Amino acid sequence: MRQIIVIFGASGDLTKRKLIPALYMLDKDGDRGADYRILGVGRSVYDGDSYRAYIESELTKYVKNHELDDSKVRRFIGKIDYLSMDPSDINEYNKLRERLDSLSINGSADSYLYYFSTPPKLYKVIPSFLASAGLAKEEPGGGYRRVIVEKPFGYDLESATSISREICRYFNENQIYRIDHFLGKETVQNIMALRFANGIFEPIWNRNYIERIEITAVENLGIEKRGGYYEETGALRDMVQNHLIQLVALCAAEPPVSFTEKEFRDEIVKVYRSIKPFSKEDIEKSVVRGQYTSSERNGEYIKGYREEAGVDLSSHTETFVAMKLEIANWRWKGVPFYIRTGKHMPTKVTEIVVHFRKTPHYLFNNLPEQPVSNQLIIRIQPNEGVLLKFALKQPGRGFEIKPVSMDFTYDSLGGLPTEDAYMRLIEDCMSGDPTLFTRSDAVEQSWKIFDPVIKYWNENKTPLYGYPAGTWGPLESDLLMEGGATWTNPCKNLTNTDIYCEL
Amino acid sequence: MRQIIVIFGASGDLTKRKLIPALYMLDKDGDRGADYRILGVGRSVYDGDSYRAYIESELTKYVKNHELDDSKVRRFIGKIDYLSMDPSDINEYNKLRERLDSLSINGSADSYLYYFSTPPKLYKVIPSFLASAGLAKEEPGGGYRRVIVEKPFGYDLESATSISREICRYFNENQIYRIDHFLGKETVQNIMALRFANGIFEPIWNRNYIERIEITAVENLGIEKRGGYYEETGALRDMVQNHLIQLVALCAAEPPVSFTEKEFRDEIVKVYRSIKPFSKEDIEKSVVRGQYTSSERNGEYIKGYREEAGVDLSSHTETFVAMKLEIANWRWKGVPFYIRTGKHMPTKVTEIVVHFRKTPHYLFNNLPEQPVSNQLIIRIQPNEGVLLKFALKQPGRGFEIKPVSMDFTYDSLGGLPTEDAYMRLIEDCMSGDPTLFTRSDAVEQSWKIFDPVIKYWNENKTPLYGYPAGTWGPLESDLLMEGGATWTNPCKNLTNTDIYCEL
Repeated sequence: MRQIIVIFGASGDLTKRKLIPALYMLDKDGDRGADYRILGVGRSVYDGDSYRAYIESELTKYVKNHELDDSKVRRFIGKIDYLSMDPSDINEYNKLRERLDSLSINGSADSYLYYFSTPPKLYKVIPSFLASAGLAKEEPGGGYRRVIVEKPFGYDLESATSISREICRYFNENQIYRIDHFLGKETVQNIMALRFANGIFEPIWNRNYIERIEITAVENLGIEKRGGYYEETGALRDMVQNHLIQLVALCAAEPPVSFTEKEFRDEIVKVYRSIKPFSKEDIEKSVVRGQYTSSERNGEYIKGYREEAGVDLSSHTETFVAMKLEIANWRWKGVPFYIRTGKHMPTKVTEIVVHFRKTPHYLFNNLPEQPVSNQLIIRIQPNEGVLLKFALKQPGRGFEIKPVSMDFTYDSLGGLPTEDAYMRLIEDCMSGDPTLFTRSDAVEQSWKIFDPVIKYWNENKTPLYGYPAGTWGPLESDLLMEGGATWTNPCKNLTNTDIYCEL
Repeated sequence: MRQIIVIFGASGDLTKRKLIPALYMLDKDGDRGADYRILGVGRSVYDGDSYRAYIESELTKYVKNHELDDSKVRRFIGKIDYLSMDPSDINEYNKLRERLDSLSINGSADSYLYYFSTPPKLYKVIPSFLASAGLAKEEPGGGYRRVIVEKPFGYDLESATSISREICRYFNENQIYRIDHFLGKETVQNIMALRFANGIFEPIWNRNYIERIEITAVENLGIEKRGGYYEETGALRDMVQNHLIQLVALCAAEPPVSFTEKEFRDEIVKVYRSIKPFSKEDIEKSVVRGQYTSSERNGEYIKGYREEAGVDLSSHTETFVAMKLEIANWRWKGVPFYIRTGKHMPTKVTEIVVHFRKTPHYLFNNLPEQPVSNQLIIRIQPNEGVLLKFALKQPGRGFEIKPVSMDFTYDSLGGLPTEDAYMRLIEDCMSGDPTLFTRSDAVEQSWKIFDPVIKYWNENKTPLYGYPAGTWGPLESDLLMEGGATWTNPCKNLTNTDIYCEL
């Protein structure tokens, strides 16, 4: 059976930076490479040869040098074709069908994978046009017809529902793969492995032993040249409603019946449904938004957000969000999940910090309680790893207790490549495993949580706090925390320098 | 107040190897050095000068070079005096009293610390002779009179009780410090810190989550030149009834009310009292003894135990013991504690391996259960540290689970000296803290557990298994274990090479 991957948006940024390199890496190791072809589709006026030349030149930029093997590159490039067409014009889909027919070798037994890497407004028309050309329906005994949809899956609850409804009119849910590269990351998947492939964590993974969970996903860059896009998006849409909520769900989920797509995704959605909806008071009290202002680092001037190209001089778009989430179920009642994301922070890092409760009674040095609580830190990026902070006795007389840590870094598995997220996910889709893709009910449920926040911001004069570029965001984000706690910034209070070496 | 440390057995091996170096190290850092003098006592015919010369020459052998500071050595040596006397002759104690009087500067306000480093049979006479010379009783408002007693605290239950009774006739329990250098080791104390200064271990530290605990304390040497001593002792007396049982107790103890001597030692004794007594059937089934036989390592012939000097040609003294202990209380019912010790094993190591139960339900790769269970390894020596074995996902497709580990080594605290056990314990005694010393009820209770084993061995033809020197002991020791488990040998199945580097 031959598989044909049709990329809509074939001359776009994502295609050259992520999709083609991932497909090449999959192809490179012959044993994984099924018989397949890639068909680039778009309005750019390439023909097969010029598109192949374009791809070949881009490949060398985005694939690591030592992975580039001349004969393998040639073999891979030879599987690529291009069709110049306007995907928003229904009349052009006959051309597409003809081309697919000519690329097929087994007729209807061959499979088509449509990769939507276009502006989201096209998500609403491509499915119907594919359907009208007879390219959407799976026939009994025939090849598959699958769609990979790139995020964003909508702009708010309404648009997300509308896109979803439109795609679902022509494709069944099991044909639709909403890709979020976050779930393709090793360390993200490892949250599941850590929790459910070990006997020691799950017994203390609940409100009795966990005090709070912090999730930080920040970048040390600004919006770069994407002012126009970012103005319409903001940090909440860009990071929170897709990535951070997923990390929350992975930390909070109940053990699934089995690690299969339905059982796993059911548990993820259950967490989304358990998150307490934000009332207006909650939004005022439990959500902090911020926007970076100009500053200076190492003598260099850093632009404030409102000075960036494409940004309104009085823009109210947030480049930082921090919030407290409550999960209303038996396991997590009373355990706040604090999440935050931001541009122009001091470092680029994504990590989860699980703060365990202190010992019920403390024995040492006449202290009223355990001075430093235990923490499990799951580092998603960079330097993927796990770090456990605990306490031991300081050598010497008496019983001075000193925080120490042990860690595991993925690096130490040496020789095992940490696979690219796209590689993993495209391969999963080709083999029909949707476990790590986002299901439509998850998308909708996430929007149901965050849509009210965006609406409230738009309708009210909710404070938008400035923070100087290169800092950890507005100080107000610390005030979210209960009991005088503050955010755990990487490199602060950490004894281990293997993982925490950025600052 | 001046303290005078009287060492009985002043020309003995322990004195030069351990006591004097520890006292020098304590003295070296002026701030810890109270005003004190050391009086060596014994039958060897030294005078003050020749004893000081002897000590000075030995000091350079047993203290690390960089710790030897000329002026500090001189100051320390200047505090040492010697009295030639026969400690088994009551008439000589007047000489001792006179000498102590002359070393005192504040009369009865000065304190005397008697260190018993003699053959144990003298433990029964020295106390009464000290008492008859008026050197045992503490007077109101006067200095302390304390005794440090070196192990062995008796040879069996009867002799231990008899020694204890004899000492207690002249000294109160709070004046008696039974020293066991094992409890002075940082890592041994750290078992308490690990368990009770952290919120995360104690919740899973019980029968619900722990499957079994293994304690191994082995040496890669034979009995060296101590054939005569060892023939009378054997591994059970030499290691199990004092050291291993202590490690068992530290792992198993309930949290004490506070970390003070009474509360802590009460909990230790409680564990001893909870250990299920061995029935005859238990001894047959749950205890394995062995004796090393000759072998060859790296082309070199290694003598069997019976070929060693001072050993009977048909000796039945065990150089290896492994056994299963059951702790009959709510926390540990059904969790076997496996302990073993031996001479001429492949390496020198003391460590505790806590095996946690597997996950109640396993999610990955269609396996019926978690393939490798979680382990917490507490390394007492060498390379003191803690290692946690858990599982993460192997990078790549699917959900292959791979055992990994994280560790903490004491070395990494760099700059903090890991204190010598004797140093810590002598200082504790001088300041009146008996927490880390063995209480008389603990000694007796330990003998109550093991005396029946020794008696049974002597009275019956219990098998004594040979094992070639340099191996992990008789194979029969694996058969002790329930459910087909085997001993965890260091360097086997361990991914971490920092700690497990010996073999």
